Amino acid sequence: MSKKVLIIGAVALGPKVACRLRRIDPDVEITMIDRDELISYGGCGIPYYVGGDVADIEGLRSTIAHAIRDAEFFKATKGAEVLTGVEAVAIKRAEKKVVVRHLKEDREEEMPYDQLVIATGATPMRPPIPGADLPQVHVVSNLHHAKAIKDAISKGEVENAVVIGAGAIGIEMAEAFTDLWGIDTTLIEMADQVLPQALGKDMSRIAEKKLREHGVELLLSQRVMKINGDAENGVQSVETQEKTIPCSMVILAAGVRPNSQLAADAGLALGRCGGVLVNRRMQTSDPNIFSGGDCAEFPNLISGQEILMPLGSLANRQGRIIATNLNGGAAQFPGAVGAFCIKIFDMGMAKAGLTTAQAAAAGFDPVDVVVAQSDRAHFFPDADFMFMKLIADRKSRKILGVEAAGPQGDAVKARVDAVAPLLKFGVDVDEIANLEVSYAPPYASAMDIVNNAGNALDNTLNGSLKSIDTWEFLEKFKNENARVVDVRSTVQAEPFVEKYGDQWLNIPQDEFRKRVNEIPKDEPIYMLCGTGPRSYECQVILAAHGITNSFNIQGGYGMILAIHEPLV
Amino acid sequence: MSKKVLIIGAVALGPKVACRLRRIDPDVEITMIDRDELISYGGCGIPYYVGGDVADIEGLRSTIAHAIRDAEFFKATKGAEVLTGVEAVAIKRAEKKVVVRHLKEDREEEMPYDQLVIATGATPMRPPIPGADLPQVHVVSNLHHAKAIKDAISKGEVENAVVIGAGAIGIEMAEAFTDLWGIDTTLIEMADQVLPQALGKDMSRIAEKKLREHGVELLLSQRVMKINGDAENGVQSVETQEKTIPCSMVILAAGVRPNSQLAADAGLALGRCGGVLVNRRMQTSDPNIFSGGDCAEFPNLISGQEILMPLGSLANRQGRIIATNLNGGAAQFPGAVGAFCIKIFDMGMAKAGLTTAQAAAAGFDPVDVVVAQSDRAHFFPDADFMFMKLIADRKSRKILGVEAAGPQGDAVKARVDAVAPLLKFGVDVDEIANLEVSYAPPYASAMDIVNNAGNALDNTLNGSLKSIDTWEFLEKFKNENARVVDVRSTVQAEPFVEKYGDQWLNIPQDEFRKRVNEIPKDEPIYMLCGTGPRSYECQVILAAHGITNSFNIQGGYGMILAIHEPLV
Repeated sequence: MSKKVLIIGAVALGPKVACRLRRIDPDVEITMIDRDELISYGGCGIPYYVGGDVADIEGLRSTIAHAIRDAEFFKATKGAEVLTGVEAVAIKRAEKKVVVRHLKEDREEEMPYDQLVIATGATPMRPPIPGADLPQVHVVSNLHHAKAIKDAISKGEVENAVVIGAGAIGIEMAEAFTDLWGIDTTLIEMADQVLPQALGKDMSRIAEKKLREHGVELLLSQRVMKINGDAENGVQSVETQEKTIPCSMVILAAGVRPNSQLAADAGLALGRCGGVLVNRRMQTSDPNIFSGGDCAEFPNLISGQEILMPLGSLANRQGRIIATNLNGGAAQFPGAVGAFCIKIFDMGMAKAGLTTAQAAAAGFDPVDVVVAQSDRAHFFPDADFMFMKLIADRKSRKILGVEAAGPQGDAVKARVDAVAPLLKFGVDVDEIANLEVSYAPPYASAMDIVNNAGNALDNTLNGSLKSIDTWEFLEKFKNENARVVDVRSTVQAEPFVEKYGDQWLNIPQDEFRKRVNEIPKDEPIYMLCGTGPRSYECQVILAAHGITNSFNIQGGYGMILAIHEPLV
Repeated sequence: MSKKVLIIGAVALGPKVACRLRRIDPDVEITMIDRDELISYGGCGIPYYVGGDVADIEGLRSTIAHAIRDAEFFKATKGAEVLTGVEAVAIKRAEKKVVVRHLKEDREEEMPYDQLVIATGATPMRPPIPGADLPQVHVVSNLHHAKAIKDAISKGEVENAVVIGAGAIGIEMAEAFTDLWGIDTTLIEMADQVLPQALGKDMSRIAEKKLREHGVELLLSQRVMKINGDAENGVQSVETQEKTIPCSMVILAAGVRPNSQLAADAGLALGRCGGVLVNRRMQTSDPNIFSGGDCAEFPNLISGQEILMPLGSLANRQGRIIATNLNGGAAQFPGAVGAFCIKIFDMGMAKAGLTTAQAAAAGFDPVDVVVAQSDRAHFFPDADFMFMKLIADRKSRKILGVEAAGPQGDAVKARVDAVAPLLKFGVDVDEIANLEVSYAPPYASAMDIVNNAGNALDNTLNGSLKSIDTWEFLEKFKNENARVVDVRSTVQAEPFVEKYGDQWLNIPQDEFRKRVNEIPKDEPIYMLCGTGPRSYECQVILAAHGITNSFNIQGGYGMILAIHEPLV
């Protein structure tokens, strides 16, 4: 009798396990069960379906060759049984059986297994606020919700919407609403920035400006107290501690929790985040039971702490590893560094590793820089600014994180992906300063922004570059009359000098060596150029003259424009 | 008295050394000399100046803030002396002096140094063929040539052109000629493929098809025997062993040789490629003399062999390291893995590491795969095919090289740059199969092409995937009536079956398990689908039925279309 592998959950990890396992073992009996009829879909595509990039919902559950991935497809093409409308109720580990309920017929049955895979995914959180269960309050978790959201919009029922939670899904949904449909959209976030898990505050401000430029009303540091409406008419408005926002649809995108109760009930160990705990082979505390995807947690390879990271890419890679190991292999998933990217309207952002705040919380002594630079050779016609933040530990000089943003999303991804796979090797700043990435003028500068970020961080660690976060500078400029020394050309600086008078000194870089004596010595000064390197060079000249109270504005005026209205 | 640093050459590495050195040492006396009046330019931008992307030649020697990088700029802004029109004639190492000649005044002088930097670059090779020195036979090496080429074109003097050498510069020049100017352009290459140093033959065919589609006449395996013309009228035609191509301009892009004679004459060691030999600190065999950029050689970090790699990005990174070490630091440049990228019309290509042939020559036992995959989530509207080749050593499973191509050049660069920095760490196939790169549907598939290339190579090494190069298959298909088993849908396969009859069997994947008995067992068969994975899955089914004479066509019909005319 052939071995029986039972897989609970048939969305991302489950199907990957099934397909790979069939390829490496023609004889094993593979059964997947799922509560839902709709299985094996690209959940991360839902915002693009709502936003119109994906015209038909079937596109999210089709192969590249346009085959619908339903139970029949898995049977005929992949050699795996799928039972839909079937929920796992309990795991009887001693008997190696799963109690399942057939939802339509409302009957229970026991399914035997030799090896079991728990791929139960995660469930969007519904905050315990009044009204969270009203009609037209949606989560973004499966194709049923996706269809309901898009149907309501296309019927013209949604004039204004509120999205609660400015993580990746919240931002993508806000974009979908405004970009195609022109819906008045308010995005509400409890934290004082968008993408609080992914980005430092300075980089997040680039995203915030972009969202606002494209018409998204952004409310930060706001807690939703109540959703108003009634069962008949749906939602009417959302109340935060400060204001009431009228709306005809609400999206709850306030994070997810792992579906690990079934595992916990069976006595399997859970981790610190409540996800199923697995070893490097993706085995749970029962060696015949594997788990992965959104329901399982694994180590962050920089902090060493277990994390949850619900991402289709991880589920796919973990699924392959589980299949290998179900078949007697010894493949390993050691963890992840949190590589992440997102499109925000006409801009791409990406990150990997820890934010500065996360690094400090994990016990590091983080030092960071932000650099601005052209994303092609600067003489190339469509060159535009890219921004990169690099974070290292002060003592070990090891890289802890990287964040980037720019109009060419693929180019942004290229920079972060060049660093991300290195992080687990504990590479240091010098490695990044000399990182070998490919170069041609249509795609990069001769000294790539990655290298320059490494150089700037090296300069910071050795004390020659003393910089200030651009948003922190802006606060000081507005509230404390902080003095700017602008080393750009007189033509560029003139309107600023006219507007701000003494607060804005202009000493062009080519005159700087001769005019050092004009610099005030008795107060902190803030060095500015277009993107940062020229003002840094002048900072070095100041230091050689014993003037050490200068701070370089990270990313220069380019960064100011990325996060703030023009200063003139 | 302050230390004197003399730098011979002021194009790429030299200026980088000077600027960085000034930043870290305010007191050192820095002098750069150069034969030319035009210094510090982006030589890699010349094809884009000729092709019109860069309108003005000054764009190639301006900073991002539009300052011209001339001697005055370096003095005022960077604190470095530059003497132009000055050639280094000899190095008197015992006296620490360089004999220089002032070219205009034709007088010699001795310049003392404490530390010397040789940044003499490289010179394009002029093959020893008759006519190579005729007017309108140009090399692409400095702004004078660049201007002469563009002036002749814009005056309408160039109706047809021949470019000799299909390396990066030859291809970029051929594109510049055809794309903007509509010049009839013939690109001649001695090897049987373009980019022979950079790409395997299968990937190079993608570039070749792209060049031909855009009107470049491509002559491979052709040796130029003679350039016809006379001093008065310039060139008339180019003769290869097979044909005569009329032309009014010739570009020699047949490689460069390092300008290392000065170093050799001074008794400094040269390497196996004739470049200046340096250690990891970029010191020559004289510890007071440093060298880098196009005139110096360094180890390929995979083969261990010294190589020359004339690239602006390397010169910049090496320049920073030299400056650090001139100042008493201990920065290291251990070598490079040959990361490279190029735009070819509307396509980007990139590579890192060794080609399969280079790997074999270096003593490895290389195994490679080519995969084709969508460059965005396949349900995303502007998704298009990307192609990736991955090469590993059979025994150690270590990755030796990667090559990629696709319409989104930045996305291609992203994939290669994610692998390139890892190569020197000796990562293996499993590392790439599980490589953590950032994912979102607008920028990638959930299982990225990098991961899938790793998976396919893993499958190849463990024997379950047996594939054939697509171009090799095409030869067998045309010349040996090789039999195709097409597992795509009947609708897709029908026209092929109609045209090729018995030579083209169609068994759709979802019927494959039931129809295995229809497969001929007594001959090799070639498995085809859209991109390769479905036909691989069917190959596995065949193997389970004892049929092992099947070969999977790498990259499927997508790869066929990328290198060949449609088969129907």
